[in-house]
Amino acid sequence: MTRVVNLNADMGEGFGAYRIGDDDAILKIVRSASIACGFHAGDPLTMRHVVQRAKEQGVSIGAHPGFNDLWGFGRRRIDMNPEHLEYLIAYQIGALQAMAAYVGEKVTHLKPHGALSNMAAENAEYALAIGRAIKAVDRNIIYVANVGSEMEKAGRRLGLKVAREAYCDRLYDDDCNLTSRKIPGAVIHDPAVAAERAVHMVIDGEIISRTGKRIPQHIDTLSVHGDEPDAIVLASAVRAALEAAGVKIVPLPEMALG
Amino acid sequence: MTRVVNLNADMGEGFGAYRIGDDDAILKIVRSASIACGFHAGDPLTMRHVVQRAKEQGVSIGAHPGFNDLWGFGRRRIDMNPEHLEYLIAYQIGALQAMAAYVGEKVTHLKPHGALSNMAAENAEYALAIGRAIKAVDRNIIYVANVGSEMEKAGRRLGLKVAREAYCDRLYDDDCNLTSRKIPGAVIHDPAVAAERAVHMVIDGEIISRTGKRIPQHIDTLSVHGDEPDAIVLASAVRAALEAAGVKIVPLPEMALG
Amino acid sequence: MTRVVNLNADMGEGFGAYRIGDDDAILKIVRSASIACGFHAGDPLTMRHVVQRAKEQGVSIGAHPGFNDLWGFGRRRIDMNPEHLEYLIAYQIGALQAMAAYVGEKVTHLKPHGALSNMAAENAEYALAIGRAIKAVDRNIIYVANVGSEMEKAGRRLGLKVAREAYCDRLYDDDCNLTSRKIPGAVIHDPAVAAERAVHMVIDGEIISRTGKRIPQHIDTLSVHGDEPDAIVLASAVRAALEAAGVKIVPLPEMALG
Amino acid sequence: MTRVVNLNADMGEGFGAYRIGDDDAILKIVRSASIACGFHAGDPLTMRHVVQRAKEQGVSIGAHPGFNDLWGFGRRRIDMNPEHLEYLIAYQIGALQAMAAYVGEKVTHLKPHGALSNMAAENAEYALAIGRAIKAVDRNIIYVANVGSEMEKAGRRLGLKVAREAYCDRLYDDDCNLTSRKIPGAVIHDPAVAAERAVHMVIDGEIISRTGKRIPQHIDTLSVHGDEPDAIVLASAVRAALEAAGVKIVPLPEMALG
Repeated sequence: MTRVVNLNADMGEGFGAYRIGDDDAILKIVRSASIACGFHAGDPLTMRHVVQRAKEQGVSIGAHPGFNDLWGFGRRRIDMNPEHLEYLIAYQIGALQAMAAYVGEKVTHLKPHGALSNMAAENAEYALAIGRAIKAVDRNIIYVANVGSEMEKAGRRLGLKVAREAYCDRLYDDDCNLTSRKIPGAVIHDPAVAAERAVHMVIDGEIISRTGKRIPQHIDTLSVHGDEPDAIVLASAVRAALEAAGVKIVPLPEMALG
Repeated sequence: MTRVVNLNADMGEGFGAYRIGDDDAILKIVRSASIACGFHAGDPLTMRHVVQRAKEQGVSIGAHPGFNDLWGFGRRRIDMNPEHLEYLIAYQIGALQAMAAYVGEKVTHLKPHGALSNMAAENAEYALAIGRAIKAVDRNIIYVANVGSEMEKAGRRLGLKVAREAYCDRLYDDDCNLTSRKIPGAVIHDPAVAAERAVHMVIDGEIISRTGKRIPQHIDTLSVHGDEPDAIVLASAVRAALEAAGVKIVPLPEMALG
Repeated sequence: MTRVVNLNADMGEGFGAYRIGDDDAILKIVRSASIACGFHAGDPLTMRHVVQRAKEQGVSIGAHPGFNDLWGFGRRRIDMNPEHLEYLIAYQIGALQAMAAYVGEKVTHLKPHGALSNMAAENAEYALAIGRAIKAVDRNIIYVANVGSEMEKAGRRLGLKVAREAYCDRLYDDDCNLTSRKIPGAVIHDPAVAAERAVHMVIDGEIISRTGKRIPQHIDTLSVHGDEPDAIVLASAVRAALEAAGVKIVPLPEMALG
Repeated sequence: MTRVVNLNADMGEGFGAYRIGDDDAILKIVRSASIACGFHAGDPLTMRHVVQRAKEQGVSIGAHPGFNDLWGFGRRRIDMNPEHLEYLIAYQIGALQAMAAYVGEKVTHLKPHGALSNMAAENAEYALAIGRAIKAVDRNIIYVANVGSEMEKAGRRLGLKVAREAYCDRLYDDDCNLTSRKIPGAVIHDPAVAAERAVHMVIDGEIISRTGKRIPQHIDTLSVHGDEPDAIVLASAVRAALEAAGVKIVPLPEMALG
């Protein structure tokens, strides 16, 4: 049996006069794009361009909604009423669906951004609010969730398709949470190390924590980054290593998800 | 043959702590709602509430997109690249579609707001940009256009359904443009006068300009306002007079449009 | 010895097409205005108008800064880096100073808004960040702080002038924190009750908690509201009762503050 | 008699996660900084950092206000009521003054950004609105105006100090307006050409139009750019050539201005 996995990256986070990351380069590596929706980053023009490029590269289109906080790039936790949050997410999904319509595609996954993702990983109310937004707007949208997080639970509870996500360039704690960036070494910069971790996660179905604990987890999608030249190199190495190990890299809609 | 016409009003223009107009009152009078989409006014929560109320009242749902200008309430002309404008409109349509999905409805018309409407009435590039956004996102959406404006022409040129709109509480110039609000008497406050004008427009198919010129125009929809108690009284009077004259008031999707 | 106290109210919280509260009515009752600075509410035009009216009424001018969150009206807690928060506050002070320059006045106090105030009441880092902004921009600006809060402590620690504030229309817990609005009766609507509490606070120098505990606190300023017709009636009753009890109501800069 | 001129550049136009230009590099070349104020670009944190660096380099601090249009980077013309525009400018000046207070400096000049600058160059009402904002907030602030523009006239009419500005990297039409960027060659990329033009403008007191017409103009300040590596090279060449020609480069407050 051929193993399959998805590679995804956030993109479309520039807008107007501002540029972040090299979307064209990362689009050649990943198979799914999580596209900023104009709240923490991005704007309609950028969204329109990114869906076009994604289509051209055979990359599936997903929403990357965030808090309404451009100055903070969506990295500040905001204490919202979960119902209000739900509609904030639905709004962003709809906006991206309109852009996807331009290229005859659908929005097929959703991955929350920054502080929203961090909060939803821990907080069931937030995780469920995001899930309800998906369910209301298009119940076929795949909820991309950190493995073992409240988001994964919320997605399952709501009967949604869930893609369990791991980071090959980040350390994990024993409880399967991402090690805080404040801990030295929490972010992996060595492409070879990241590549090896990626292959282990996918082939062996486990995450090794920073203390060496083996945490069995089935991984559906690996997140890589395109925001710096080094990140592109790392992402390329991860992809190459996975392919060398016989893993097939596919868009999220082609994954068999629970 | 029974004459039919639509009555529409703008709504959902409050947000957060801010209220404008009495949406519940006007929803009992009109048959189509043009709902602000979070750019010049409105927010996701307000949009969600308004689509719910519209559904409950059998009122059809439309987008009321505007410039991204909350401080100016979308009433300031902004000189945008038409292509960028197109995506700004598409974005807003999509956002409202997501909200409409909550109540199992579709967005069935679009009416531009404020300065965007004024510019698109005169400027073919703007009018076409709005039309292209409709065409890309959902070509069944009805383009609500001031009678005789560039919007009407753009809609026809793009093969869209167009609803020709008139204002029963505004004077018209001989060229069928709305008389500037700066001219005394340009806005009609007397419910009886507005009601009589509405009946004449619909039954006789003509607009009488402020100089008395008769301008033949088929009117599909009449715009009324709900932003002040007086406006609600006027809108009620218009509806009552139309019904008394045997005119049937229907939602926009029930109109036979060219 | 004549007792003196200040009355203050938040204002200038409308903007563009939006109105909140009756600023003209409340300006006749209070002696100090806490003016929104364009982040959670307000805009430059509104700020300009309110400083004019305040000047005309002999009401002192203060800044009412909030989080950058118009949709949330500054009522959502946002987890900001304290240094970033400090500059966010300094920015808003400066903006209001420019408006005050139009009428030859200075910004003489600062009172944080909404969630920012709630966070700074509990969190020393936030309270100090606000205090540092005051100190950097104009160290003569009075820091209006809930009695007994972290803001009061931060102001003293930084050597700033502090005005201890109480609410005559809110219940207090035994620890001198405001009783949550979720507790029935937490907000007092009866003008006579509010007036009696105000007089007791000022004359007897104590707050009586909702369990009856007497908490000795010297009050420099009482906060009233102008956002609803009922609030104006209550504020009038409070002022009348204070004056009948021989208390002099003065602008904040005329208070002898520690 | 030693000739003197000022060199100025726009800066502080990044914010949050976004970077534009190399402020540190350009601060070593120019003597005056025109700092974005959070409307078209910039944010409080960025403003705070830039005033610090400017102070350290002996560079004078100026406001670079723009329209409230982050998505458009202030490059879209917005049709505002001049009175509202005036307060929008005053607000931004005040905000920057608060940041300058951190380093014990004053805001000593103002240069409008992008579309606001273009409109004010042609439109006396806009030019006067900007001038009135300066006059109200701090009448010692120098109004940096394109030579021969409505801004120069407005500044003089209001009795303000005016610095006549020219661009050494742009062509001019015979009427002393900047040649549109749409005309090939309108922007000069060759450092040697820009340097020669700069020296000619300052030493000979004239601008040579693209048709060869000599337009006598006294230039107080030359604008250079720091937004691309090439721009830094050009700015360095301009400065070196001016110094080689015996021209002294000084901050704007050291210029003797009419």
